[in-house]
Parts: sequence; structure tokens; C-alpha cells
Amino acid sequence: MLFFNSPNPAPNPRRVRIFAAEKGIALDTRDLSIPAAEHKSAEFLALNPRGQTPALQLDDGTVIAESVAICRYLEATHPEPPLFGRDAKEQALIEMWSRRVEMILMPPIGAVWVHTHPFTARLPGRNAEWGEANRPRVHDALRFFDSALAGQDYLAAGHYSIADILLLTTVDFATFIGMPVPEELESLRAWHARVSARPSAAA
Amino acid sequence: MLFFNSPNPAPNPRRVRIFAAEKGIALDTRDLSIPAAEHKSAEFLALNPRGQTPALQLDDGTVIAESVAICRYLEATHPEPPLFGRDAKEQALIEMWSRRVEMILMPPIGAVWVHTHPFTARLPGRNAEWGEANRPRVHDALRFFDSALAGQDYLAAGHYSIADILLLTTVDFATFIGMPVPEELESLRAWHARVSARPSAAA
Repeated sequence: MLFFNSPNPAPNPRRVRIFAAEKGIALDTRDLSIPAAEHKSAEFLALNPRGQTPALQLDDGTVIAESVAICRYLEATHPEPPLFGRDAKEQALIEMWSRRVEMILMPPIGAVWVHTHPFTARLPGRNAEWGEANRPRVHDALRFFDSALAGQDYLAAGHYSIADILLLTTVDFATFIGMPVPEELESLRAWHARVSARPSAAA
Repeated sequence: MLFFNSPNPAPNPRRVRIFAAEKGIALDTRDLSIPAAEHKSAEFLALNPRGQTPALQLDDGTVIAESVAICRYLEATHPEPPLFGRDAKEQALIEMWSRRVEMILMPPIGAVWVHTHPFTARLPGRNAEWGEANRPRVHDALRFFDSALAGQDYLAAGHYSIADILLLTTVDFATFIGMPVPEELESLRAWHARVSARPSAAA
């Protein structure tokens, strides 16, 4: 089993590294540099036609792309501690909050990144007006998660889960592109300090 | 258990209806009209602060929002037939393809819908240039799925799954907004005929 990784600040490979660290899984890892476009090499495109990291190649040759799909594979093969929920209700609530991170918070962050950030200036099809229109959406989304975390130690089901991993990597990527969590979002900041203090956050 | 539904063409509630039909689950259903803004009523916002259907209220009062989260609840409580995969590899491949529908195909369709369609003309913050820029992305994404389906009866793991349900409802929504599958994408069209012939597709 071989894990195709890219170093920080890429948020998606970090999700898998944190997930594996929480499970105590040591991944046989190969790093692909995104600035050097190693994820767009012919060799890697043959494994993942989307040209994206992370990817996990199983011993039978099967390639699992997409961060959460890799985490699901690791959950099924290494069930403890459960990070996708212990019963039907937990599984549903963790999926709900994971999707909210992906559908509410990540898209406007991605739009600001792709359409306004100096590091992406060479991408075709940039639309600065659209990028700028997404800045208030990032703040609205951060406020929504701040409200959700009021009085809660973790995002879903009362314990640490994949939903926290998705929110952590997404918030840290927002900080990287210049949109840190505002001071007044105290519940979100307290949660961020809590999950960042786990050894896995350094993975 | 009460299912908050909205009729077609809303694609997300339909996902749950198809999923439940495949499982043989009869949902106690309440319809909320999106044109009449019933999903934005104070009563429903108290259940789902996002003001979106579908939602599932459990007997203990817990509200599960997000289509796929509801499907996961139904999978855990009604395991047969398995629609999220039977083992670690199937679960990962089905998650990978489900995410590709959500991350590659749905966003450009949503952008065309929100930023260019006459039915959404009153939404604030429309950006017609951004909407138009997404039309070729819809076609690129449809071509990607056509290639993936060449020689395959189903999208993931060799059998019908939630990934097929997500692709079906997304393709049908694209047709609704005026972007049907082009004639030349024969594998995608054959797959569409195959999954549309299942009784569940009428749900």
C-alpha cells in the first residue's frame, strides 16, 4: 500500500495524514510536489486521471483517490478509534457536518484562492469579481461553524471525528490564504486550539 | 421518523427517495414547496438552520440534514441491499466516485443554475460571466464520466450504488436546466437509460 502525498499547505493530503495518525497507522508515503507539478506527471496521471493528491494505491493495484475515500478505506481496515461514527445516528451526524464543511465552507475558500490569490495568478479563467464576492461567504460560513461549536468540544456526535479533521484542515488553509478566523468567533477559536493541540495535527 | 421532502426538480430530496425505494423503505413524508419558500419557514429553520431539504427528523428529535447523511442513516438501519459498499475497497471506491460527482460535476451545474438560469434571476450576487464560464466545465465533467463508464454497467465497484444515485439525480438536474447529455457520450447515455429503467428512478 503506497500513499501519494503532497506537503503542506495542500489541505487534502493533510486530512489523510491526520486521520492515519489518529489511528496509529504508518503509511508508506511518496511525496509529490505540487509547485513542481509532480501530480501532473504522466506516471501519476496513469494512476489518478484527475492529477490530484492524495491517492492510495492498494497492493492489488487499485487506486483510491479523494481524501475522504482514503479515510473510509482506513476506517474499514483499522476500525479503532472510530472516526466516522459508532452507530447509525453518529454516522449520519458526522456525515452531515463533514458535508457542511465541504459544501458551505470549502467552496468560498476555494473561490477566493483560485480567483484572487497571487499564487494562482497563472490559472486560466480567473474571475476576480467572483473571487472577491466569496470573501463575505467565507466569513458567513466561519460564523455558522462558530455558532455550531458554542458549548461543544467537537463538531459532531460529541467526540473527535473526521468532521473535525475536515474543518481543521479547511480553517488552516483559509488562514494560509489570508483569511484567518476572526477574533470574535471565540467558540471556533477555542475548538481550533483544542484540535490543534492533538499530536495528529502535526502530521 | 419524518422525512422533509421537496418535489422534483429539486435533485437532493430525490436522492433520498431513490435510495429509500432501493431499500424498500416507506418514508413518512412531508412535502415542502421550494417555490413557495416553505423550506425557509421559521418552523423548518428551527429544525434545519440551513433551510434546505431534504431533512430527516428521528423519533428522538434529532434532525439529520444533507441528502447523503440521511442515506447513511438508512444504510445503517436497513443494511440490505448495501448501497455504500460491502467491504473496505468497495466502500472506498463508491466514496471516491460519489465525491467526484459532487466535486467535479455538481459545482459547475450549480454555477450555471445560480448565475444564468431565468428561474434564479432574483438571487442576489449573480455573476453571469462566471455562470457562462461553467458551461464548458459541465461538458468536460460529463465527458469524464462518459469515459469512466465505458465498458461499465455502473459507476463504482461493479454494481448499483449511491454513486449511481448521485450521478443520476445530477445528470437529470443538468437536463432540467438545459444541459442534457450530448448524443456522442454514448457510455453515459447507456448508463443513464440503465439506471433510469429501475423502478426506484420514479421515486
